[in-house]
Amino acid sequence: LLPETKRDGVKVVLVSPRNPLNIGAAARAMANFGLRRLTVVAPYEEHWREAKSAIGAEGLLQNAGATERLEEAVANCSLVLGTAAVMRRKPEQAVIALPELASLVEEELERGGRVAVVFGPEKRGLTREDLSYCHRLVEIPTDKQQPSMNLGQAVAVVLYELAGREPGAADPKSPLSQASESRPEALRDYLPASAGELERLAGVVEEMMLAAEYSPAVMRNANRHDVNLMLRRLRLNQRDARRIVGLFRSILRKIKDSDAGADP
Amino acid sequence: LLPETKRDGVKVVLVSPRNPLNIGAAARAMANFGLRRLTVVAPYEEHWREAKSAIGAEGLLQNAGATERLEEAVANCSLVLGTAAVMRRKPEQAVIALPELASLVEEELERGGRVAVVFGPEKRGLTREDLSYCHRLVEIPTDKQQPSMNLGQAVAVVLYELAGREPGAADPKSPLSQASESRPEALRDYLPASAGELERLAGVVEEMMLAAEYSPAVMRNANRHDVNLMLRRLRLNQRDARRIVGLFRSILRKIKDSDAGADP
Repeated sequence: LLPETKRDGVKVVLVSPRNPLNIGAAARAMANFGLRRLTVVAPYEEHWREAKSAIGAEGLLQNAGATERLEEAVANCSLVLGTAAVMRRKPEQAVIALPELASLVEEELERGGRVAVVFGPEKRGLTREDLSYCHRLVEIPTDKQQPSMNLGQAVAVVLYELAGREPGAADPKSPLSQASESRPEALRDYLPASAGELERLAGVVEEMMLAAEYSPAVMRNANRHDVNLMLRRLRLNQRDARRIVGLFRSILRKIKDSDAGADP
Repeated sequence: LLPETKRDGVKVVLVSPRNPLNIGAAARAMANFGLRRLTVVAPYEEHWREAKSAIGAEGLLQNAGATERLEEAVANCSLVLGTAAVMRRKPEQAVIALPELASLVEEELERGGRVAVVFGPEKRGLTREDLSYCHRLVEIPTDKQQPSMNLGQAVAVVLYELAGREPGAADPKSPLSQASESRPEALRDYLPASAGELERLAGVVEEMMLAAEYSPAVMRNANRHDVNLMLRRLRLNQRDARRIVGLFRSILRKIKDSDAGADP
């Protein structure tokens, strides 16, 4: 299990779960494996109320957040992991095997980052757009004949792996597990950029593409999708993100000034 | 996942499950991880009928057996494994950690033995008498605060481990596991950008910084140095590099056109 100090660094995100029982089941698995931060994206109002009022729901569900969109749910996370059983189409992100999950998450928490693990709705799973907010995909190795897992069970299996299966793997007294607290100011720069910072960056890139007439307007959504994917692949740190936004803003100003000047 | 020839060597046994949904959930997890032999001990008659007739129950549940007593269910098994979350009392059998499960089962199957994995009823778990039919206990490492797992989720986690979590243990014919071998032409794009490509990119960035009057000329060398470092840290692939160069060139053209227009 994760040491106490790291448990708030990992968030479970359920995108539009259809069955209130599955929200409860996800919450239970979280409690079993020592997590407590849950966000539900675009829940069905009625189901959400039902899940929250279920017997045994306790604090975890009472404190769970709900957002309209996935990007809000993961805005403060620097590593967003989408989950999937066997993929139907070739994914656009790097896929990691479930057994690699614990060390990837551990590494991100050591760097002072925050992690979101995202589960799609029953039946259809995460959409291509949902996945564009993910840095990596985590694949659960299921049988070809019956690849699709029940949501509550998928959450249990993934969190079991994430909690670190090695007996005694997590050492609460390791000097590293305290690192993220007393981190000197300057090192903040090297923290991984959060999803919110990447969104801001993607927005500036988009604006710049338009200002530069990079491609026809009809390509705008496709370009934004590609930019989202790329920015997440790059694992930018906060300083990189700030620097790029700064440069791009000065370019935008330049383009706009010039246009104004040229355009009497 | 277990190879086809070994799948019949492992049986899942549920002792007196109370909730028919859990029987269905156990069956689904079995299908997900490639098992098909299920026996239910002393089911509640009504629940058992309900579970068997559930939509999607399919062959696995239709073919499931029911016995009166646990010893009948495991009669033909040479290794019987009881499952438990954290133990309340000191167990009388040797306890193995869940991560050791796959190799233990594998070994037994190699020897020509048969394995049963036994799950107790919701709430109370396996009794001391139930456990007396078990060779070993398998412990699921849950949080002390909330040790007791939902039955369907416990089955999923145990079978996930049993199916073998080693990367590459999953079906070698899965489309994903092939991806890295017969790499089609298009995947070239995802090769890391070469030093030459990064140089070209750094050159365009530098030109753009100048055109945008991003910072005083005296900073030029320092900026170039930082850009070089950053581009290498980003692990760009060839497609990223080409795309960024393309975008930056179109911006440069735009700036220059505007300047030319504004200047006469």
